[in-house]
Amino acid sequence: MLVIMVYDVEVKRVAKVLKTGRKYLYWVQNSVLEGNINEGSFKKLKAELSRIIDHEYDSIIFYTFRTSKYSEREIMGIEKGGESQFL
Amino acid sequence: MLVIMVYDVEVKRVAKVLKTGRKYLYWVQNSVLEGNINEGSFKKLKAELSRIIDHEYDSIIFYTFRTSKYSEREIMGIEKGGESQFL
Repeated sequence: MLVIMVYDVEVKRVAKVLKTGRKYLYWVQNSVLEGNINEGSFKKLKAELSRIIDHEYDSIIFYTFRTSKYSEREIMGIEKGGESQFL
Repeated sequence: MLVIMVYDVEVKRVAKVLKTGRKYLYWVQNSVLEGNINEGSFKKLKAELSRIIDHEYDSIIFYTFRTSKYSEREIMGIEKGGESQFL
């Protein structure tokens, strides 16, 4: 499955959240990671992040797509990250 | 079409980018907007943003989906924005 993860967390937790996200996904831009991972890895990712963030303050959104067949990704300006999962 | 827009732009251009994005999409989180718009509005949005950003420095990614049938959206922590386009 394709996963797009965007986080909005307190500065002091950014490094940990980013490091954990990068174990499973690729960094594409400030606060955004994406990747093709299986359901098991997605669950592990969420479990790890859940222990890091402050649930009363931080926010992480996961967009998941069973298929990338109906999706497109377009960049305006520079491409900051790498390893796009989109064709 | 469902559009997810994530921006990573120089601080001095954030307000303009956000204001323009909000004309067409809903703010959901720091640097992230989403919405269901038609192709014409999407083109207008891109044209407006194109005049605002520094193409050598800033980056805006648009994920577009012809259908949200195969997608899900999950939030961990707090929900910051509103008006989700996901069921």
